[in-house]
Amino acid sequence: MPPPRRAQRSAAHDLERYAGLFSARTREMKSSAMRDLMAITERPEVISLAGGLPDTSTFPAESFAAIMARVAVDSCAAALQYGPTEGLAITKDAIRHVMAAEGTEVDPEDILVTTGGQQVIDLVCKTLLDPGDVVVAEAPTYPGAVPAFCSYQADVVQIEMDADGMPIDVLEETLDRLEREGRKPKFIYTIPNFQNPGGVTMSLPRRRRLVEVAAEREILVLEDNPYGLLRYAGEPLPTLLSLGGEGYTIYLGTFSKILSAGLRLGWAVAPAPVLSKMNLGKQATDLCSSSLTQHFVSAYFAEGRWEPYLESLRELYRGRRDVMLDALREHFPAEATWTEPDGGLFVWVTLPPEVDTTDLLARALQRNVAFVPGRGAYLDGRGGASMRLNFSGVGEAHIREGVRRIGEVIGEQLELVRAVSGARPDPAPQAPAAPDPALADVLHLPRPARPDARRSDGSR
Amino acid sequence: MPPPRRAQRSAAHDLERYAGLFSARTREMKSSAMRDLMAITERPEVISLAGGLPDTSTFPAESFAAIMARVAVDSCAAALQYGPTEGLAITKDAIRHVMAAEGTEVDPEDILVTTGGQQVIDLVCKTLLDPGDVVVAEAPTYPGAVPAFCSYQADVVQIEMDADGMPIDVLEETLDRLEREGRKPKFIYTIPNFQNPGGVTMSLPRRRRLVEVAAEREILVLEDNPYGLLRYAGEPLPTLLSLGGEGYTIYLGTFSKILSAGLRLGWAVAPAPVLSKMNLGKQATDLCSSSLTQHFVSAYFAEGRWEPYLESLRELYRGRRDVMLDALREHFPAEATWTEPDGGLFVWVTLPPEVDTTDLLARALQRNVAFVPGRGAYLDGRGGASMRLNFSGVGEAHIREGVRRIGEVIGEQLELVRAVSGARPDPAPQAPAAPDPALADVLHLPRPARPDARRSDGSR
Repeated sequence: MPPPRRAQRSAAHDLERYAGLFSARTREMKSSAMRDLMAITERPEVISLAGGLPDTSTFPAESFAAIMARVAVDSCAAALQYGPTEGLAITKDAIRHVMAAEGTEVDPEDILVTTGGQQVIDLVCKTLLDPGDVVVAEAPTYPGAVPAFCSYQADVVQIEMDADGMPIDVLEETLDRLEREGRKPKFIYTIPNFQNPGGVTMSLPRRRRLVEVAAEREILVLEDNPYGLLRYAGEPLPTLLSLGGEGYTIYLGTFSKILSAGLRLGWAVAPAPVLSKMNLGKQATDLCSSSLTQHFVSAYFAEGRWEPYLESLRELYRGRRDVMLDALREHFPAEATWTEPDGGLFVWVTLPPEVDTTDLLARALQRNVAFVPGRGAYLDGRGGASMRLNFSGVGEAHIREGVRRIGEVIGEQLELVRAVSGARPDPAPQAPAAPDPALADVLHLPRPARPDARRSDGSR
Repeated sequence: MPPPRRAQRSAAHDLERYAGLFSARTREMKSSAMRDLMAITERPEVISLAGGLPDTSTFPAESFAAIMARVAVDSCAAALQYGPTEGLAITKDAIRHVMAAEGTEVDPEDILVTTGGQQVIDLVCKTLLDPGDVVVAEAPTYPGAVPAFCSYQADVVQIEMDADGMPIDVLEETLDRLEREGRKPKFIYTIPNFQNPGGVTMSLPRRRRLVEVAAEREILVLEDNPYGLLRYAGEPLPTLLSLGGEGYTIYLGTFSKILSAGLRLGWAVAPAPVLSKMNLGKQATDLCSSSLTQHFVSAYFAEGRWEPYLESLRELYRGRRDVMLDALREHFPAEATWTEPDGGLFVWVTLPPEVDTTDLLARALQRNVAFVPGRGAYLDGRGGASMRLNFSGVGEAHIREGVRRIGEVIGEQLELVRAVSGARPDPAPQAPAAPDPALADVLHLPRPARPDARRSDGSR
């Protein structure tokens, strides 16, 4: 069916006509850096190191068909029907197996099955946040959480991480300061394992202390753990939930990275009063998660091959991580630094301060390679010299080539800046490469006001 | 895996400990009457006329398996992967076929694929509503929209329908009154076809006038149309969108009733500036809808059998509707009235005013039959003497038996009331049947303050 001819529209007039109708939260909404890039990176010629995509090509099509044939025989009508808002018991059983593999026992009644892990973040915000409420997050933080926090008009305070994740002493100082200002965060958002995008892991002493701090101060912690089972080096660390954090932890899990993101199935484990409010929020939002994909998960776990499959993913991604780290050493400038993650999907690269990765993305896309600019991981415009690189979504040859191309455009940009400023590092504004109009949409990332220290007098 | 022993919890202490953390919206959230009933009505011995469930047992398991085998061969990796927030092009193509079957042409760029129709309601509220903003809805309105409106703290003004749906002259008077109060609704919510729960259909002249009113006053209309293709009598009527309503209509469609509710796939068609904000809202909420279920829809439509299947549903549901209307005539008291829908899934029954259907539900559940009490379809406590009955979810014998049992408990309740009040209709409070503790949760529906006119002096 060919699309009908489209009526001419005046975008300006339209915007004017509707702008007055939007809610205050809509005026603060931002698009997600990854989501914006998605359309562009779907082009086959683009090497995308931008998404957080699992490599679903490793899942055997025969297994998919066999699992679905099983669902057809055993539970076709149920798979096509509404289910309870909290999720199906069969799904919760699979979830308990996944969590047990991370040493965390959980009661089915404490689980809410959600439409992906993202919905947990949304429901936690919905349940807890009034406009202006404080959320404490890591710096950098998950770029997909940023639009969720913004859409609930949160005041997000970000705490810079080091190699061991969020420093809890700095967290405590921040909480003290907030308390002096009469503000108490509604929750602390953390990704303890192989942080997205930082690539670092919170140490065991910090985990223990975070659980204590949460209980002492009666502050909820949203423990976002999509990658815990994707560890390529070192020993697994316990979840906050299993360290005695039941009273103040809202745990977020997902099947997206260990099985399939296309299922849109995640889960929350939370204290009963919080979980029941999240359930109400979910009723209003989407009634229930897909019964069909829940039955797929159940039949997949019944096959008993989920752990070998996970092991195959770990081997694959370990190799890709190593290739990426190699390629970074080869192609990125000596002044660049990056994290060396023990697991997960991401490396966080920090470039010399005169590089602006938002501008750099325009150049990179012209060379058919993509990454997530660092500003997407901050709410205050920081991160301009950083980028997130994903190593799970494409093969080793593409990782090498992608990193090489990005290294090339970094080199060009550095050369340009240094030529202008007489070889001295100079963060003065420079003309970005003119973006392809089709790419313009992805370049609307927030830019910080140039700090005073960065005057363009060129002398220092 | 057996569940671990559950830690003892003090619910009261827990509630106290967390209550201060919840947002203002959470304190206004309600549960959905249908969702609460879902757990109970899953018991095999219960005849549920409560849900809005399609009969998914009619979908052949062999077709399900064949469609999924097709997806496995053609697009396994893509079905398991993230997709764009707006939805896959293949899904939009199926949507355009469905909408064309209702005489409505639509550009793929104007479509947002959503996680069920419910998500459209949520995203519209999210995009447009600040706390206290006015929404105009029909009375009664969809019980699943009530928690969504409440969670955005909307001020919902409901307009009583007649046999031709919402009277537009009354709407205009209401809009005038609101204007005099300095209030303009953010949108008008309507289900023009076989309204849920009212069972009535908006006439063509009213549709035309509604489109005019929306344009004249620059007010958006949310046209919720899940059942338009499930017509059992009479001629199809055009959608508001196709009547020139493009500028002010947000159209809601879903695959839930014509194919499967377990897919959680619906869609919105909206003016571009509104759609782009809804897209932002969706990014923050669940990133994208399931690729797996989208590929299922696409493969199903590619088979070319969706229209014959729909015809089979129409035949089935037409028969069930007729059986329900018969059974109502046989088993309900002479004073009861009900709608005779030309399509959709629901009959709306209004009983003598001395019957309270919230109380009645407790008695009905003791006889293993369920319905949705009318109060769930109002935001102001009205609807106490009404109930919604579904005829799509169970077979004809169960419909007859379910209606018979409900008729029986109505008879008992009427007898009780009239015995107390000396055979005169008397709406004085009466002791409800003591509910099964397991059912207590579903009986937390709002109750109106007893109006002054209903004094219990028993004399009139």
